[in-house]
Parts: sequence; C-alpha cells; structure tokens
Amino acid sequence: MTLITENKIFGGVQSVHEHRSEACDCDMRVAVFTPDGVKDAPVLIWLSGLTCTEQNFITKAGAQRMAAQLGMVIVAPDTSPRGDHVPDTEDRYDFGKGAGFYLDATQDPWAKNFNMETYIRDELTAWIGENLPVDMARMGILGHSMGGHGALTLHLKNPERFKTCSAFSPIVAPSQVPWGQKAFEGYLGKNEATWANYDATALVTATLSPANILIDQGLDDDFLAEHLRTDIFERACAESGQPATIRMQPGYDHSYYFIATFIEDHLRHHAAGLA
Amino acid sequence: MTLITENKIFGGVQSVHEHRSEACDCDMRVAVFTPDGVKDAPVLIWLSGLTCTEQNFITKAGAQRMAAQLGMVIVAPDTSPRGDHVPDTEDRYDFGKGAGFYLDATQDPWAKNFNMETYIRDELTAWIGENLPVDMARMGILGHSMGGHGALTLHLKNPERFKTCSAFSPIVAPSQVPWGQKAFEGYLGKNEATWANYDATALVTATLSPANILIDQGLDDDFLAEHLRTDIFERACAESGQPATIRMQPGYDHSYYFIATFIEDHLRHHAAGLA
Repeated sequence: MTLITENKIFGGVQSVHEHRSEACDCDMRVAVFTPDGVKDAPVLIWLSGLTCTEQNFITKAGAQRMAAQLGMVIVAPDTSPRGDHVPDTEDRYDFGKGAGFYLDATQDPWAKNFNMETYIRDELTAWIGENLPVDMARMGILGHSMGGHGALTLHLKNPERFKTCSAFSPIVAPSQVPWGQKAFEGYLGKNEATWANYDATALVTATLSPANILIDQGLDDDFLAEHLRTDIFERACAESGQPATIRMQPGYDHSYYFIATFIEDHLRHHAAGLA
Repeated sequence: MTLITENKIFGGVQSVHEHRSEACDCDMRVAVFTPDGVKDAPVLIWLSGLTCTEQNFITKAGAQRMAAQLGMVIVAPDTSPRGDHVPDTEDRYDFGKGAGFYLDATQDPWAKNFNMETYIRDELTAWIGENLPVDMARMGILGHSMGGHGALTLHLKNPERFKTCSAFSPIVAPSQVPWGQKAFEGYLGKNEATWANYDATALVTATLSPANILIDQGLDDDFLAEHLRTDIFERACAESGQPATIRMQPGYDHSYYFIATFIEDHLRHHAAGLA
C-alpha cells in the first residue's frame, strides 16, 4: 500500500492510497476520509459514476464536513481498473476505463481486469478492515449514477455486508436502458439471463433488503428519461415490498452541485441505519 | 453577456457568464452563486489563486451551502485575461494567463490585456450592479493566495467599495517574495517604487481600513516560508494599528481542503461586517 496524498480537512484527514487488486490485476487508487480521533467508526463506501476517478467525490461533494460531525469514515474507490495493460475503448466514455459498472466481466478482453464487483465486495472491504479505524459491522454503501447502480446491486446482493444503501441519480434498470445494455453486452455477453444479477430492478423483485433505500433524483437531469428511469425501480420496490424513500428533486441536474446539496441527508440516513 | 452554465445547488443557482472587458480587451468568464429568492443581498467577490479559473472555487470550496443560508451572492471571476490574442508564457504557471495578480500592467506586451485591477474594481462591480439582485453598498472581497493578495490590496485601496475583507493563505508582501517580485518586475517594470501600490504590507503602513481583516493560514502550507510570509503583514498591522484577526491553522496546507474547512467562518465574518 502506498500513500499518494494526505490533506487535513475539517479536522480529519483526506488521503489517497494505492493498493494491489488481484481481481483487477492492477494497482487501484482509493480515497479515504478519516475524521479526527475516530475508533470503531461506521464506514461508507462511495461509488462514483462514469468517467470519474477517486478524485471527483472528495473534491466536489463537500461530504467531509458532515462525515467529521457524524464521525464516519468514507472510502471512495476508482471506477475501473487502470494501467497501460488494461484494455480500453478509444472513443467511448461509457465503456472501458472509467466505466467498470461494478460487475465481474466474462467476455474477452475485459474479463482479466474488469472485475469491480469482486474488487469492491471482497478486496476493498478486506483492505478497509485491515487499515482503517472502523467497525466492519457498520458498513454502508452509496453512489452516483453508474455508482448508484453499483451501490444498489452490491447492497441487494450483500445486505449483511453493506447494511445501509443510498443513491444519487442511479441507473436502476440497466438491462432496459442504453447505458446498461451496451455495458452488459460488452462485459457479460449477449445472453441477457446473465444480466439480471447486475440489475437492481431485477434483484429487488427476487430478494428484499431489510434496510430502507434512499434515492435522490433530479428532475432536470438530462439522463433521467433515457438512462436512469427511476420510475421503473420505484414500481418494482412498491410491487415487491422493498422499503425505499425515492425523492424526485425539482430543478436539480446530474452534477455534483446536486450531490453537494443532498449529501448531508444521505450521510444522516446511513448514520441512523448504522447506529 | 452570455450565460454559459446554470446549475441548481442548495436551492439557489450556480451560474457562469461571459462578458466583455474593455480593460482586458477580451471576454471574461465569471461565476455567480445566487441564493433562492434574494433581493438587495450582500455580495462577495472571491478572487482565486495562481492557475485557477472561475471554476475552482465554485466546484471545490463548498461555499454555496452557507451562502444560501446567509442569503449572500458570491461572484468568482477568472484570474487573468484569456484568449488566443492574449500574451502568455510557455513554461511559467506564475506569470501570464492564470496569473493576473489583480494589477494593471504597465510593461509590454502585458499592458494591453493584463489590467485585472481595473477589471475587478470598475467593470466587474458595474456588471454586478446591473445584473445581480444585490445591494452594492454591502459588498465584500475575499480570496486565496494570489487572490488573497488581490482581496487585501483592493480592500485597502477601496474600503468604501469593498467594505469587508478576508483571505486564505494570501501573498501579503509581494515586493519581498519571489512570486511577487517576478510578477511585479514583469508586469510593472524594475522601478520598485511602483510596486508599493500593489503590496498589502506597504499599503497597510500608509492607510488603514476601518474593517477587521480576517486571515486564515495553514501552518503546513508549502508556500508559507518563501512566498506567503504572513508574519510580515501581521507585524505591519500591529505597528500601523490595522485591525486584523490572523489565524495560523496547524496541519492545514495550501489546498481547497483548507478553504472548505474554514469558508463558513469567512462568510459569517463578511455577513456580520455587511449586516
């Protein structure tokens, strides 16, 4: 493990580390905010969206203020494997590097490196348990857009590991929208039966989480109608009985300005669920 | 005037505009946060540091939350003239574009465009008065690093226009440090007598402001010992009788993580002074 940067903020420390991922066969960067003096703290994993690295959330969301106040550690990993040996697309922001979709790819040439589900669920959580002053029994997960998809699916499949969940502007039904269909076909192949395992709407009809899921979605989000489709997940939750608080926010878009506005609500949601 | 972007945040609007500057002979971008529903609001001008544009403060400082709560408009201009016709240096981040130093240059080839003092003091304030829902009698100024230098000098020279002042990690004695000496020699020439007009330490020995100046400076700031030298200004204020609250903050560096931590204190300082 290598320490890349370390900056004091709100009395705590915002650090960036690099550590080895076997699942992704590369070194991965991960950002960590640690409030001053915490021990056995609750911990959140933040999953970012398309094109992001570990930097976007820690520089733009303004989450450290409330995390310091609540005594929560926040871990923000990168969104895909990285390195010259990792395959990529030349002209697509929504596939390849920066677009790992929090799944384990089965198709060549992606399968060797694009195993973000295993990385987040097993390797990153093990790294957190070994290196951070947290209580692993109090871990939540949240994210934005593609990272909202990651948070919902990882929570629904592992509710005992990621006990609380929330999302901003998540891709809730990837099997039914272009962003998800293109990613799933590339990473998982054309057999749509394999897609359901990474589709929050499909998952929530099969298995329920005891936690109440919080979702904020901006009504002026340019991606809402085509790619996000909050309505599909809202209907699935209602039909299956999954507890969810889904808030459609007038005037807000897909940007970090939206996230910054409501991140305090999300941290309080997790703090209450992990108390 | 052209509207470039507009995003809802904390109930208000973060916008970016482009308008013509005669002083800089170019179009200038300026960012504006306007809380929801304000009228005759107090207004702050934020001046950024070396290499910044109008983007850094609005994406990284987290100021909109408290500005919305206090009902303050915040205007963040760019740090230099821009455009292909504007001269620049090839290899220097501290001179040319992104390094306007909030002065009116007298030396060729800079004098035609690098007139940031006139731009901020006259043109930007006129634009604010014509376009924003503010009370021009309640205007303050603040900034970071090179922008802290700009805020201090513009305030000390125009205390009736910029009634309140604060700074993060300011260059307080540019005539005595490498960043300032290199900039002043390039923009103003070798005659050091002309430099005092843009040196907060020189200004504060000659003229006092009735306002209490707030300064926050991180003790782990890599630029403190060579370029910032808060101690020189602190001594000058003590000797001249200028009211100032100068806080040396252990562990903090020169980054926006530092600014984000204390921006609330600064906005409250201005709100109280402009009440």
